[in-house]
Amino acid sequence: MFVPYPHVHYPHPWPYFVRSSYDFQPTPLTIVLIHGSWADTSFWDEIAAELRQLGHTVYVPEYAGHGADPNKAVTHAMITKSVVDYIVSHNLRNIVLVGHSFGGTIVQKVAEQIPDRIRRMVFWNAFVLKDGESAADEFPPAGRDMFLELRKSSPDDTIKLPFPVFRENFANTASFEFASHMYHKAPAEPAGPLFEKLDLKKFYTLSIPRSYVNLTEDIAIPPQADGAYGWHPHMSSRLGLFRYIQGVGDHFSTAKTDPRSVAYRIYEAGRD
Amino acid sequence: MFVPYPHVHYPHPWPYFVRSSYDFQPTPLTIVLIHGSWADTSFWDEIAAELRQLGHTVYVPEYAGHGADPNKAVTHAMITKSVVDYIVSHNLRNIVLVGHSFGGTIVQKVAEQIPDRIRRMVFWNAFVLKDGESAADEFPPAGRDMFLELRKSSPDDTIKLPFPVFRENFANTASFEFASHMYHKAPAEPAGPLFEKLDLKKFYTLSIPRSYVNLTEDIAIPPQADGAYGWHPHMSSRLGLFRYIQGVGDHFSTAKTDPRSVAYRIYEAGRD
Amino acid sequence: MFVPYPHVHYPHPWPYFVRSSYDFQPTPLTIVLIHGSWADTSFWDEIAAELRQLGHTVYVPEYAGHGADPNKAVTHAMITKSVVDYIVSHNLRNIVLVGHSFGGTIVQKVAEQIPDRIRRMVFWNAFVLKDGESAADEFPPAGRDMFLELRKSSPDDTIKLPFPVFRENFANTASFEFASHMYHKAPAEPAGPLFEKLDLKKFYTLSIPRSYVNLTEDIAIPPQADGAYGWHPHMSSRLGLFRYIQGVGDHFSTAKTDPRSVAYRIYEAGRD
Repeated sequence: MFVPYPHVHYPHPWPYFVRSSYDFQPTPLTIVLIHGSWADTSFWDEIAAELRQLGHTVYVPEYAGHGADPNKAVTHAMITKSVVDYIVSHNLRNIVLVGHSFGGTIVQKVAEQIPDRIRRMVFWNAFVLKDGESAADEFPPAGRDMFLELRKSSPDDTIKLPFPVFRENFANTASFEFASHMYHKAPAEPAGPLFEKLDLKKFYTLSIPRSYVNLTEDIAIPPQADGAYGWHPHMSSRLGLFRYIQGVGDHFSTAKTDPRSVAYRIYEAGRD
Repeated sequence: MFVPYPHVHYPHPWPYFVRSSYDFQPTPLTIVLIHGSWADTSFWDEIAAELRQLGHTVYVPEYAGHGADPNKAVTHAMITKSVVDYIVSHNLRNIVLVGHSFGGTIVQKVAEQIPDRIRRMVFWNAFVLKDGESAADEFPPAGRDMFLELRKSSPDDTIKLPFPVFRENFANTASFEFASHMYHKAPAEPAGPLFEKLDLKKFYTLSIPRSYVNLTEDIAIPPQADGAYGWHPHMSSRLGLFRYIQGVGDHFSTAKTDPRSVAYRIYEAGRD
Repeated sequence: MFVPYPHVHYPHPWPYFVRSSYDFQPTPLTIVLIHGSWADTSFWDEIAAELRQLGHTVYVPEYAGHGADPNKAVTHAMITKSVVDYIVSHNLRNIVLVGHSFGGTIVQKVAEQIPDRIRRMVFWNAFVLKDGESAADEFPPAGRDMFLELRKSSPDDTIKLPFPVFRENFANTASFEFASHMYHKAPAEPAGPLFEKLDLKKFYTLSIPRSYVNLTEDIAIPPQADGAYGWHPHMSSRLGLFRYIQGVGDHFSTAKTDPRSVAYRIYEAGRD
């Protein structure tokens, strides 16, 4: 029987973020973190810090149309190329490739191009698209219509989430103040890649191990009674044999309000 | 990044009932708590005390056919009127209107009558009826048949839950002793309003913000494999854009055995 | 209102494994633990120790084709007979009969034969088969095909799980090292009983109280978006009126890494 490790000091009480099954001398991993829409690499700041404190090597590439890139007229292929180029130019190997939200679609396409560099893929409340689908196809009709309207009214083909949607569906466990703070930092998202239908035939031939992390209050894709939409098991089950890791939190704010808990879940998902 | 608040002293260990995202200087809310069937206002005693300790102003109106009211031959309109009259006579405004269980149907009808006084509606494992439905319509056939039988055999058109149903489906996480204690305090419920089909056309035009609180062991409506019945997402998804807050517990006993935890979930659901 | 019990000393912080509703002077139960496939009675060692420490009397019968039994060509009836003989020869009465995984099918058949000795049945992420079904029928087609292939390639009609399946679906929350350790201890499973279609007509006439314990990361039966397979509510809902108890963990490793938590869930499910 495993016993906990009383000599380990944590600022928070022990059981909140760690299981008794946790291995306190974890294997150091090389982790590449891919953010989703309405975000840039700063989304990962706190989680990356926690993972580094646990002894892992962490890379956080920015991708086309995001961060300092002034060009918002990007394609999904340009985004994928950004990440592939980053991994190849840094000569990263044996990586755990983590995609959050829309980052799941990027993980899928990157894995097609450089499968030999990837030890495991981790989808954290991330899209796992079927061959020929777009991310927008995985939203219930009301959400898809909202995105189409927002896109039409945009001068530069970007989408900014309405605050009520962000507050209720992306930051539902946060305080109003923190949700507002995050909202005002969230950049507009290039609309094109969300609506691009992706050829994923090769992805579905890959044998790279994969995991799915699900936070139970994440309703960024509003759950439906018939299970026709949603993160888990709707999209996770497309991964075939996968490891399931569950945590507590919402789609956006938990990355900032409880990064240690998310970092542990990513480690549990990413280890061999 | 948010840090926890080490200067705050709690009698229980910190992480059980509070998230790291919790704001320890919460906005004071005006909260109106509407109980469900087989209950009276004493259902809320411990939760209301916790909410008041957190700085909120809490009202717990009784409604027709319940509490001291000797007349059990009530209609849903009479129940709604009790709550509307209470709110109007106390001149309550900007309220967070919380309905538990059958209280959800009351929140729906009260919101139709005095929408301008309601800042947010919170449904806690509560019915969200479709236009033209009754609460009984939302029970799987076996439960509905049981209610019909119980109603037929009642001398005064009230329904008393059989103890095994109460113990297994309403107080499943409690000890036998506490479940028995709660059961013997639970009043018989006027049957009529449970079977009344409600006109909810106006409710579905309202734009009042709304939240859904779901305790994960609540099986008062027994869950079905096909998702055709149940609290979340079956009924919650009818709310359109809503905030989702999840907690641990069952339908009835957690209000008494862990009121602090429920109070925090209600606050998280009720704040802006 | 219940208060926690500050005089009780636990090596772990209080709230991790125990609810505030827990009764610290629990009724002593007589508990019989029935393991599942790819296991023997040692599966229960740590959980049984925790239950005994709580004051319960615990029996852990081995059954045909498992443990020291050299004969792997067993039938479901032989397995059931092992358990029935054990209970009768020890003259156990008023028992809480707990089945884990495949052990659920054994509980179903034992209950048919000696219903008067059983106070309550507890299914812990266990099969609840319909009349005429086999355990294999409850696996999604991909899993069933895998079992058929493994069976065909076996010299002695046993099935050994491939390591990736064990690691990802049975020990998903464990470290790699512990998952490997458990895997190498896991015996091959006689294939026959997994594919036997069981006559369960009598089971569905029994009125013995029953409970279902579900650990939320258990994906030994991979969950499907349409709810057509899985532990809860897919199989639990066949029990009719049942008590639902939820915990955290996976199918196999949590029994070893967090036995206290599982023991509490079993007690909560097993008490009256």
